[in-house]
Amino acid sequence: MTGIERKLTTILAADVVGFSTMMSDDESGTLESLKLCRAIIDSGIAEHHGRIFGSAGDSVIAEFSSPVQAVLCADDFQKLLAERNEHFATEKKMQFRVGVNIGDVIVDGDNLFGEGVNVAARLEAIGDPGGICLSGKVYQEVKRKLDLSFVDGGAQQLKGIIDPVAGVSPEHPASERGVRHW
Amino acid sequence: MTGIERKLTTILAADVVGFSTMMSDDESGTLESLKLCRAIIDSGIAEHHGRIFGSAGDSVIAEFSSPVQAVLCADDFQKLLAERNEHFATEKKMQFRVGVNIGDVIVDGDNLFGEGVNVAARLEAIGDPGGICLSGKVYQEVKRKLDLSFVDGGAQQLKGIIDPVAGVSPEHPASERGVRHW
Repeated sequence: MTGIERKLTTILAADVVGFSTMMSDDESGTLESLKLCRAIIDSGIAEHHGRIFGSAGDSVIAEFSSPVQAVLCADDFQKLLAERNEHFATEKKMQFRVGVNIGDVIVDGDNLFGEGVNVAARLEAIGDPGGICLSGKVYQEVKRKLDLSFVDGGAQQLKGIIDPVAGVSPEHPASERGVRHW
Repeated sequence: MTGIERKLTTILAADVVGFSTMMSDDESGTLESLKLCRAIIDSGIAEHHGRIFGSAGDSVIAEFSSPVQAVLCADDFQKLLAERNEHFATEKKMQFRVGVNIGDVIVDGDNLFGEGVNVAARLEAIGDPGGICLSGKVYQEVKRKLDLSFVDGGAQQLKGIIDPVAGVSPEHPASERGVRHW
């Protein structure tokens, strides 16, 4: 275990709801929507001092020094994405799921590895379209520091993760703005 | 649709079988195994004139000018990975699934997007550990050009993909070498 650099960091994982289906329907339109949405997300991550360390297809994964900043970032860009969706026809709407976790991960050059990263991705996968799913560890750090209400989703048994993880979601206005649910 | 650059290319998608579970068990050992395996895969892709255009966590996605080269590449590195696994204890063994597809995809800088990419990833997901799953389009191109036997898996309804895709696999010696199946 010596010689391995590790750090405690906050991981944010996001990807598009129904991306393959959207691509099947309309490749160029879906790519255009993805690029617009990624511009919103990427600038939000930069504003909140996050750093993107992975991106493939419709997925993006970033780290933040502060869980408060990570959740603020996700809440901000989800609201902006929901506003964007209001102006577009159904087939151009694009929603993201977001998962946020804290973990002591392995630093490998610019990349991060470890269960902490995988848990963020698994939380994202079980999250609501347009919403955010936090681990209990993130919730404990942010609950008194943000002007958000939270809903406890209970202990989640995540694929490939040994211990159950508490899933907690901010009550997100994004889902109340008429964007589609898959 | 004007102004969009497209090309017909061969996409290879690969990722680790049970990566989250392995990370949960042993983060540093799993990362070490991943780096060794990726060295094998990446040098195989380079040797066969492929180009990696996406990588996140345990996944890698590459394009090849030639489907024959793509399948040869996958067959070569799967054999090398199986040989590597013979020398390691069970918990250090690492297997990859591989999917290969041909598609007319959108070129966006160094990145590629489109159903052709998504189909490769979906074929990978349904493939055998240590094996390769080709689309019917790839099979048609390579069947008389490679000294491999193939098994027709029939029409596959892939998640988010409208039309069924024929899944065809080379009879791969990797699975016969005592590597574990999940």
